[in-house]
Amino acid sequence: MYYIGIDFGGTNISAGIVNDFGEILAKKSKPTKSERHYSEIIADMAEVCKELLSELDIDQKSVLGIGIGSPGSLDIENGVVLYMNNVNFSNVNLKKELGKFFDMPVFIDNDANCAAFGESISGACKGKKNSVTITLGTGIGGGIIIDGKIYRGSFSCGGEIGHIVIEHNGRQCTCGRKGCFEAYCSATALVKRAEELAKKNINSILFKSVLGDVSKINPKLLFELSRKDEPISKFIVDEYIEYLADGITNIVNVFQPDIVAVGGGICNQGDYLLEPLVKLVERDVYGGVLKTKIVRAELGNDAGIVGAAMLGRRN
Amino acid sequence: MYYIGIDFGGTNISAGIVNDFGEILAKKSKPTKSERHYSEIIADMAEVCKELLSELDIDQKSVLGIGIGSPGSLDIENGVVLYMNNVNFSNVNLKKELGKFFDMPVFIDNDANCAAFGESISGACKGKKNSVTITLGTGIGGGIIIDGKIYRGSFSCGGEIGHIVIEHNGRQCTCGRKGCFEAYCSATALVKRAEELAKKNINSILFKSVLGDVSKINPKLLFELSRKDEPISKFIVDEYIEYLADGITNIVNVFQPDIVAVGGGICNQGDYLLEPLVKLVERDVYGGVLKTKIVRAELGNDAGIVGAAMLGRRN
Repeated sequence: MYYIGIDFGGTNISAGIVNDFGEILAKKSKPTKSERHYSEIIADMAEVCKELLSELDIDQKSVLGIGIGSPGSLDIENGVVLYMNNVNFSNVNLKKELGKFFDMPVFIDNDANCAAFGESISGACKGKKNSVTITLGTGIGGGIIIDGKIYRGSFSCGGEIGHIVIEHNGRQCTCGRKGCFEAYCSATALVKRAEELAKKNINSILFKSVLGDVSKINPKLLFELSRKDEPISKFIVDEYIEYLADGITNIVNVFQPDIVAVGGGICNQGDYLLEPLVKLVERDVYGGVLKTKIVRAELGNDAGIVGAAMLGRRN
Repeated sequence: MYYIGIDFGGTNISAGIVNDFGEILAKKSKPTKSERHYSEIIADMAEVCKELLSELDIDQKSVLGIGIGSPGSLDIENGVVLYMNNVNFSNVNLKKELGKFFDMPVFIDNDANCAAFGESISGACKGKKNSVTITLGTGIGGGIIIDGKIYRGSFSCGGEIGHIVIEHNGRQCTCGRKGCFEAYCSATALVKRAEELAKKNINSILFKSVLGDVSKINPKLLFELSRKDEPISKFIVDEYIEYLADGITNIVNVFQPDIVAVGGGICNQGDYLLEPLVKLVERDVYGGVLKTKIVRAELGNDAGIVGAAMLGRRN
């Protein structure tokens, strides 16, 4: 049988047909054009799904369900998008509205949960009972899988791993709290910190390498310079990895999952990031023995599609 | 049917007969006398259980199992105490050794898990699907109940809520890490902080009220003085509540349980502690709406007995 997964983002709607093994057989995307009325956006979601079915010559009867991973504030049980930051969706019953186009059940869940679920189905956490996947991006997305199922808490909004305070009264977080993991370890936080320090060190190679335009600093550049032992960049990257180890050790001490998978562009740094990170977690883990594996997420952007597709099957 | 629960501590062995509703029908304790050989201690455990059965005139056949809540490092699956801090137990198969005295299964789990499970059976978290119980004592004990069952992680040592770092590079914790929740919010941490500040403020009422012997400071005194607006004590108590709110908000953001129950002697302060605590969590919780209830634990020391007794029934 088949499943359809949709990764609904502010920029693109990406959909895929997924088989029982969590493999994507075909995928396709359309621009969200977020300024449009929600009904037009939903019609496009339906269209991209139908195009995929037609391309693979799959009958709707062979599809067990459509899942949608969405950002924003959701009522998962009823399939309602309560609020989205950049898209004109407010109290939209996505389950019902998309359901009008198909004769199959529609499920929604938040994008971070879908990514974690996808990794647990066919990615880095495949076959593991308990896993946590975090994605280091604009923010920190976190998804918790317990006993092979998404853990959502009692009111469907648990798993906000990015919003564990790791520094009392620390940096301001977008959530309103101070000192959240996200305020130190999102890609945004890394760049912001570098901008600050570059401005304070105008004779540094970091500052000069962007010709004084600190808005040109990005994680890739920082890691490149750090690898070359440029002192400011190395300080920033080392500090970043320390905070990341704090957040991940917190996760390990509380959940002691089989595996923690770390995703997002920063993970392209591979062992340069992971090796010191794992060493710090090994040093700090409760009881002194790290049994949880800490690895790179494997599916990238596909994780959200796979996880969304599988919502109907396993949760 | 009946269950026997044992709360195995460094000072006392407390046991109780528990019914299907998680009510203690009779309880009894003996001093641990921790310097003895483990076989003598286990023989005493057996004796106290047999005395209880005899007092209530309950036949062993009506008892479904014996559970033991133990501190220290455990191999829960095999029922082995690997190591205990203050008691002469090292690699003792408690399940097997105590099992020799009875014709029923024996279970072990860590004391914090048992306390949380007890609260979820017949205490503050009764009837709730997901709950977290923390106990503010010498350290911070934490137990996580998910779907009515103890969550232990993949290697039986999860749930170390006291060892979430809430201040990067902060106060030294006994676990080796710096900045753990426990290093700020255990009763020990509260007293230690007060000792430090009293010594620095020798003209304070706090310092004078213990006649300069800061080792006489205890949480009760601190709260008493804080209620009377003694500035140093008030500062310490306010700071303590702020850190406590940080740790509890972290728990809520990640688990979003139905309820968080807080136990330990400090909770005798009632609303003077809970009201400002809940206000801070309401201010800081992700999404701005606190759906999780934050309450006092109800069972006190009995929680460990009830939870241990029920190990055989539900986990």
